[in-house]
Amino acid sequence: MSELLVNSHNGHIKASDRVPAIARPFVSEKAMRTLDLVEKFVEEECIPADAVYLRQIGETTQQRFSSHPAVIEDLKTKAKKLGLWNMFLPKNHFKEGAGFSNLEYGLMAEYLGKSRVASEATNCAAPDTGNMEVLAKYGNEQQKRKWLDPLLNGEIRSAFLMTEPQVASSDATNIELSIRRDGDHYVLNGQKWWSSGAGDPRCKIYIVLGKTDPNNKDKYKQQSVILVPHDTPGITIHRMLSVFGYDDAPHGHGHLSFNNVRVPATNMVLGEGRGFEIIQGRLGPGRIHHAMRSIGQAEKALEWFLARINDPRKKPFGEMLHKHGIMLERVARSRIEIDSARLAVLNAAIKIDESDAKGALKEIAEVKVLVPEVNLTVIDRAIQAYGGAGVAQDTPLANMYATGRTMRIVDGPDEVHLLQLGRNENKRGPAHMNRIEAQKRKGNELCKKYGISLTDPLHLNRKSGEASKL
Amino acid sequence: MSELLVNSHNGHIKASDRVPAIARPFVSEKAMRTLDLVEKFVEEECIPADAVYLRQIGETTQQRFSSHPAVIEDLKTKAKKLGLWNMFLPKNHFKEGAGFSNLEYGLMAEYLGKSRVASEATNCAAPDTGNMEVLAKYGNEQQKRKWLDPLLNGEIRSAFLMTEPQVASSDATNIELSIRRDGDHYVLNGQKWWSSGAGDPRCKIYIVLGKTDPNNKDKYKQQSVILVPHDTPGITIHRMLSVFGYDDAPHGHGHLSFNNVRVPATNMVLGEGRGFEIIQGRLGPGRIHHAMRSIGQAEKALEWFLARINDPRKKPFGEMLHKHGIMLERVARSRIEIDSARLAVLNAAIKIDESDAKGALKEIAEVKVLVPEVNLTVIDRAIQAYGGAGVAQDTPLANMYATGRTMRIVDGPDEVHLLQLGRNENKRGPAHMNRIEAQKRKGNELCKKYGISLTDPLHLNRKSGEASKL
Amino acid sequence: MSELLVNSHNGHIKASDRVPAIARPFVSEKAMRTLDLVEKFVEEECIPADAVYLRQIGETTQQRFSSHPAVIEDLKTKAKKLGLWNMFLPKNHFKEGAGFSNLEYGLMAEYLGKSRVASEATNCAAPDTGNMEVLAKYGNEQQKRKWLDPLLNGEIRSAFLMTEPQVASSDATNIELSIRRDGDHYVLNGQKWWSSGAGDPRCKIYIVLGKTDPNNKDKYKQQSVILVPHDTPGITIHRMLSVFGYDDAPHGHGHLSFNNVRVPATNMVLGEGRGFEIIQGRLGPGRIHHAMRSIGQAEKALEWFLARINDPRKKPFGEMLHKHGIMLERVARSRIEIDSARLAVLNAAIKIDESDAKGALKEIAEVKVLVPEVNLTVIDRAIQAYGGAGVAQDTPLANMYATGRTMRIVDGPDEVHLLQLGRNENKRGPAHMNRIEAQKRKGNELCKKYGISLTDPLHLNRKSGEASKL
Amino acid sequence: MSELLVNSHNGHIKASDRVPAIARPFVSEKAMRTLDLVEKFVEEECIPADAVYLRQIGETTQQRFSSHPAVIEDLKTKAKKLGLWNMFLPKNHFKEGAGFSNLEYGLMAEYLGKSRVASEATNCAAPDTGNMEVLAKYGNEQQKRKWLDPLLNGEIRSAFLMTEPQVASSDATNIELSIRRDGDHYVLNGQKWWSSGAGDPRCKIYIVLGKTDPNNKDKYKQQSVILVPHDTPGITIHRMLSVFGYDDAPHGHGHLSFNNVRVPATNMVLGEGRGFEIIQGRLGPGRIHHAMRSIGQAEKALEWFLARINDPRKKPFGEMLHKHGIMLERVARSRIEIDSARLAVLNAAIKIDESDAKGALKEIAEVKVLVPEVNLTVIDRAIQAYGGAGVAQDTPLANMYATGRTMRIVDGPDEVHLLQLGRNENKRGPAHMNRIEAQKRKGNELCKKYGISLTDPLHLNRKSGEASKL
Repeated sequence: MSELLVNSHNGHIKASDRVPAIARPFVSEKAMRTLDLVEKFVEEECIPADAVYLRQIGETTQQRFSSHPAVIEDLKTKAKKLGLWNMFLPKNHFKEGAGFSNLEYGLMAEYLGKSRVASEATNCAAPDTGNMEVLAKYGNEQQKRKWLDPLLNGEIRSAFLMTEPQVASSDATNIELSIRRDGDHYVLNGQKWWSSGAGDPRCKIYIVLGKTDPNNKDKYKQQSVILVPHDTPGITIHRMLSVFGYDDAPHGHGHLSFNNVRVPATNMVLGEGRGFEIIQGRLGPGRIHHAMRSIGQAEKALEWFLARINDPRKKPFGEMLHKHGIMLERVARSRIEIDSARLAVLNAAIKIDESDAKGALKEIAEVKVLVPEVNLTVIDRAIQAYGGAGVAQDTPLANMYATGRTMRIVDGPDEVHLLQLGRNENKRGPAHMNRIEAQKRKGNELCKKYGISLTDPLHLNRKSGEASKL
Repeated sequence: MSELLVNSHNGHIKASDRVPAIARPFVSEKAMRTLDLVEKFVEEECIPADAVYLRQIGETTQQRFSSHPAVIEDLKTKAKKLGLWNMFLPKNHFKEGAGFSNLEYGLMAEYLGKSRVASEATNCAAPDTGNMEVLAKYGNEQQKRKWLDPLLNGEIRSAFLMTEPQVASSDATNIELSIRRDGDHYVLNGQKWWSSGAGDPRCKIYIVLGKTDPNNKDKYKQQSVILVPHDTPGITIHRMLSVFGYDDAPHGHGHLSFNNVRVPATNMVLGEGRGFEIIQGRLGPGRIHHAMRSIGQAEKALEWFLARINDPRKKPFGEMLHKHGIMLERVARSRIEIDSARLAVLNAAIKIDESDAKGALKEIAEVKVLVPEVNLTVIDRAIQAYGGAGVAQDTPLANMYATGRTMRIVDGPDEVHLLQLGRNENKRGPAHMNRIEAQKRKGNELCKKYGISLTDPLHLNRKSGEASKL
Repeated sequence: MSELLVNSHNGHIKASDRVPAIARPFVSEKAMRTLDLVEKFVEEECIPADAVYLRQIGETTQQRFSSHPAVIEDLKTKAKKLGLWNMFLPKNHFKEGAGFSNLEYGLMAEYLGKSRVASEATNCAAPDTGNMEVLAKYGNEQQKRKWLDPLLNGEIRSAFLMTEPQVASSDATNIELSIRRDGDHYVLNGQKWWSSGAGDPRCKIYIVLGKTDPNNKDKYKQQSVILVPHDTPGITIHRMLSVFGYDDAPHGHGHLSFNNVRVPATNMVLGEGRGFEIIQGRLGPGRIHHAMRSIGQAEKALEWFLARINDPRKKPFGEMLHKHGIMLERVARSRIEIDSARLAVLNAAIKIDESDAKGALKEIAEVKVLVPEVNLTVIDRAIQAYGGAGVAQDTPLANMYATGRTMRIVDGPDEVHLLQLGRNENKRGPAHMNRIEAQKRKGNELCKKYGISLTDPLHLNRKSGEASKL
Repeated sequence: MSELLVNSHNGHIKASDRVPAIARPFVSEKAMRTLDLVEKFVEEECIPADAVYLRQIGETTQQRFSSHPAVIEDLKTKAKKLGLWNMFLPKNHFKEGAGFSNLEYGLMAEYLGKSRVASEATNCAAPDTGNMEVLAKYGNEQQKRKWLDPLLNGEIRSAFLMTEPQVASSDATNIELSIRRDGDHYVLNGQKWWSSGAGDPRCKIYIVLGKTDPNNKDKYKQQSVILVPHDTPGITIHRMLSVFGYDDAPHGHGHLSFNNVRVPATNMVLGEGRGFEIIQGRLGPGRIHHAMRSIGQAEKALEWFLARINDPRKKPFGEMLHKHGIMLERVARSRIEIDSARLAVLNAAIKIDESDAKGALKEIAEVKVLVPEVNLTVIDRAIQAYGGAGVAQDTPLANMYATGRTMRIVDGPDEVHLLQLGRNENKRGPAHMNRIEAQKRKGNELCKKYGISLTDPLHLNRKSGEASKL
């Protein structure tokens, strides 16, 4: 199978050798070896399996959301054997994982991002990863045994239900789904959409954000997170949302309603009013995972781009496309943009490793905005080089674009992150103003000291002949 | 003077605390301390002195290029006392410097970039830095004693004469100035421009690139580098070039001619035909210096931007500018762009530290293109926030823009770097094409294995009723 | 139904009142009235029918390409009654049309572009429009009666088969499909893809570009265009290509093969070797149609954008989105970009009206590049304002983006048009160089006349003291 | 002199033949002839004279602002003889002008924009043009005779004093200069800057905006416009502001103070409280003039760009620059952007001609934002093609960039126009929301009529088995 990895005299550079110089001190030997293994697994096993996966899903909507491709289970077996399992759980917070830091897993996630099936094959797929983190970090023992264990084993899947269609969910305080205490139970009423993963028949548990105390004056204490088994009466899956024209089956993005859905009070996570705290802890590392998978997608798009402009069968106006300077410029810009964006993600991962997601707020927000833009730009260039094949099913590019486009929206749209970043930076504004004015004053004093007049050479009192002061 | 640095309860974060997490393993304790000292020196001494410097230069062209501001010498004395001297000379190559790596000096150069005088005040100003590197690396003992020593001491200044007006100098093989051997001498004839620094009366030595062997079949062996004292007969300074209206006096960008200029043969550096080798070694670290100073300029522009939008006297439509979302978005984007660009430069500096400029070709080229674009974008946003003051002498922004704009041209225009980068990336093209095709083949085999037909659901032979194959 | 058009006191401005001032002299009274009728028909009849259309198509691939929605026939009946039929056929070239100029129809096409079904409902849908033009302009009487008449009546549909998967079709000289004369017949062998419209069961006729004389030294004489009934033996539809997940059923983008497909020699259009001439004539007006429909899509996207930011249910952070300056800036930029792009299209349409597509080469190329970029930018902004709903089926935006994206590829990718434009502009280069140099010479003479020295104030011969000349 | 215009067999196309097709109905025969005359005058007389002008100004600040180049008076004499005088005064409002519409003059202004001296040489230079409009439209007979007549004759020059350094002048209601009635006089106190033209010794009259009634509840009635002779006691010119490094001498941008400056009450224009009305009327046509001159600058930059890439002496890497695809792409994009921007300006001019500046608010705002961005982009590309010469005095590009950059600031910064445009567009928002919802309702009704279920194919009530409604 070595033809797939393209051996070194063909110019292939191993994943471990592509780790940026600046990141190396943060990567253990073990992580380096695992990284190469991940690359090999993705390139040789997963990417070829993508073709199978897409064809095994079925044709009608009912078919597409009632089973999942067999090839994925075979890959999971292989991945487990290779030790490529649960690499996402950061070693400084969880003993259940494979023992890597966020930075180390980030490097691996880049390669996982190159295949549709690789993240799931290694049990590193969203939204399970974030959900497992929630359960491991905030769940009690009973919750862990019942839901975390089968998730860690890849036996079931899960969904995180937060967004609602009727409000501006980009501001999570707008969430309305009602969670009302009723004796030993909680009763849920409301709607959710973009419930990603809810379409998969293996999805057994929903982690649901709603309001237990909608009138609490502290609007960050109104929310709670509660566990809801998928087959609790009162839940209806109304439809699956499409992303551009893709339904992302069997995973799917569900639009659900909750009609007097009743769950035991013990399903509450961490306690009433702790919902905001939980979702904030959940989002940090997940954004790094998404970002590094996006970097991987951008690299993949660039690889396809390069493949196209070196295709000897494609010679518009008598020359292969790589002879056209426009194409090389785009290749170069893509390389620059990907490389600098990757460094930003790795730096954010290190910040999380060194403290936690809260300590890396700025770095995460930067990455959240920067990476999807870079990814979409690179994919778009590759699409253009392919022409018709670029938008069609013959390349993975259009699908990657669609997925990549959602990254500017999910977990908070760009604008929310930009405003948060902008406001934080802006806090330094008055201090800068003061410093600049102090420097001007000192500059003026210095001028006096050196005997320099502050009056401009052109200083005329046109009539009276005497200069006046401003 | 602490009002200038703005102490911590005003939100000031020390330079050493702003080093990106990912870069910290590469920065020694000593460098950390020096970095804070550099910041303090720049903010408290140099920036106020900029105002003096600009006013001490004089008004007529003759005045402006016949002396240099006294304030600079006072700053040099202070800098030497503080141990802030020659930090640019990388410790792994030169014993003459202050003992820092390129990465460490890079971090300092960011702060030097915030002031017009700081680089010169610490003897870290271009083109002297690159020239000192050339002399230290390639000069013989006599050349070192005569020119390197006074340069290291900040007693004289120097110029590097490469670009020529009549050819496309972006391709250095086009350089035409003739260096002809004549007994114990070389005789130079030709023109040079953009001879930066040649306007300063302290500039005593020109390092000149020309052709000793214009007919050599290897076009990279035609060039030589030779030392020419500024007062050698036959040299004429015809004029100074302006940069967007600025003459950059007394430094200046000279247009010179060489008319039978005769220098001793011992002034040849390294030997005939070694010119290309020398200029390539010279450019790498210099590009990092430029890039980090540009990062510093971008940070300064952002600081001025923030100062303006928090100025209580400036309330268009009843609100300070920072209340306008458009402004905060621009602040946030600037922060994102600067931070990721900085990481790219630091990574390139580490690559140079770990091998040399040749080993960091890709990283340097990326930085060469990326950083000036980011810098100009950020400065332009700040200019716009200031309106009229932004383009005028009341802010440093327009001058920074002009200087920043040249960074897309000097040491090779963007396009040269983009094409070089693009060509290098493109070498991986055929390998990628082969791998993608191998993956497709394997995907098809897998489909067969899983019993999946490769024929599309819609496959019609409109008339004959039988399917045909592609 | 007047609630749909939103009457004037709600701010609705009639289509005829929105015609740019500069275009009015070119629009007849009749066209003005028809334009308002088109708007009314689109807004009140077609856009509501879009929802029906999408749901009537069916679910499996076989279903989706074996019938067409009934609602479309009802709309066609209505449109005919209103006199909204075949408006695309330019009055100065064809008597069969509705009697409008390209400019006038262009204004109408903008409104047609707002609905998925409107172009077809008025028999103004691609590729039939271009195909009808080909038949009307180049077909003989027999060909016209057999294929043009039913097309003009909207009884059948057609496809134009040009692009081939195995070559770089952006350069049409690469087309390979073989058309070989065999007695009274021609025999076709080869492949075609992006055969848009071939999926529709009503598509009865293919207009096929291929090579009758592949060895002709004039590479623009190798091609011919021939008419091929869809049910000729030897034709296989292998599959339908998707566009970002959308299959565009029942229209579709077919991948077909021709295996010894035999048609009567009388099906040749215009004569062997005239293929290039035909496709060039065909593309001009079609590009204007596409462009104006794209303008309409951009306007629609902006309308949806405006609707969203004024939705009182969507209040992130306590305020409707239109209170956020970022959003208003995007609205304003969209308005600017759409308006200037529209003017470019209208100007190109007038150029075609005044001569023909050849005389408007520059203007058409400009529009071909500019309009899709504007359209995609505006749609993307609207998507972002909607968040999840923007990429899903709840808005038309993602589908519009997918279609809009193909506009940068079809009828020649951007790059081909940019290079052609660039080359044409470049022809003026030497003349400009000469003029600039002549102006410099005259400037120097004038200086002499006014007694001004051309020597720079700073002109020093550092040693010898005498100035030398450059 | 015909070598300058480059005759037709060298590819030169006359100005009248370059008028966009869509604009022709608006251009009289006389205007067409004058347009060609303007082009000839600019290319053959003015551009060569630019070199003289720049050298005649002098070197020290005092020199530069105490005389004006003699060459300009010679050109004025020539222009008058050719009938090229005061073309800017629109024929439908003023009898004093040359009898052209705003559209017709706009076409001429494009050519005037190519030379530094052409606008002044034809008495069409800002700020005199706007000032003459103010006097002609709002001045009384005495004011007209005293100031308008010599301005129309080109005997004196004028300045418009509006912007103030201490406030956010982008919001004109912030203007603070006090105009206090005192018997038969008004007394002025305050500061002004960006008083463009105030540096010229021929500048005899200031048209000053200030506040006569700062406490008026209607903040648009607080302002008045008053005429102040330049030599009135109490006026001090403190300094001249630079634009990037250019001082724009002798014109200049003054920073002035008013200290009890006393003028006769008869100098009030139109009456107290009419200031806002006057400045709004003043800005419309002026923005068109600026915009068309900017279009001319962009064309000139493109001409220089084309000249460079066809310069046989400049061959980086063995080929002239026009052989590099990157360059041709930039040429093409420049052509596209200039052409569409020009159409936007011409359309705005027609809107003004058909009503007035108020009726063209949207179109003027669009142009105000669009044109400077296009102009700067094109100039920047040209600069990059020239490398060092691009930023220096050897090309006009850097100076054009500096001037062009101010166009994003003067007469209201981009952001003000964007917000105004955005707000106006946004008024349509609720109507669009209503229409879209009405269309959805009608779509649903239609679905029912056609017997289509609105329930999604995937609609599961996971446990209870019965579907529920949203």
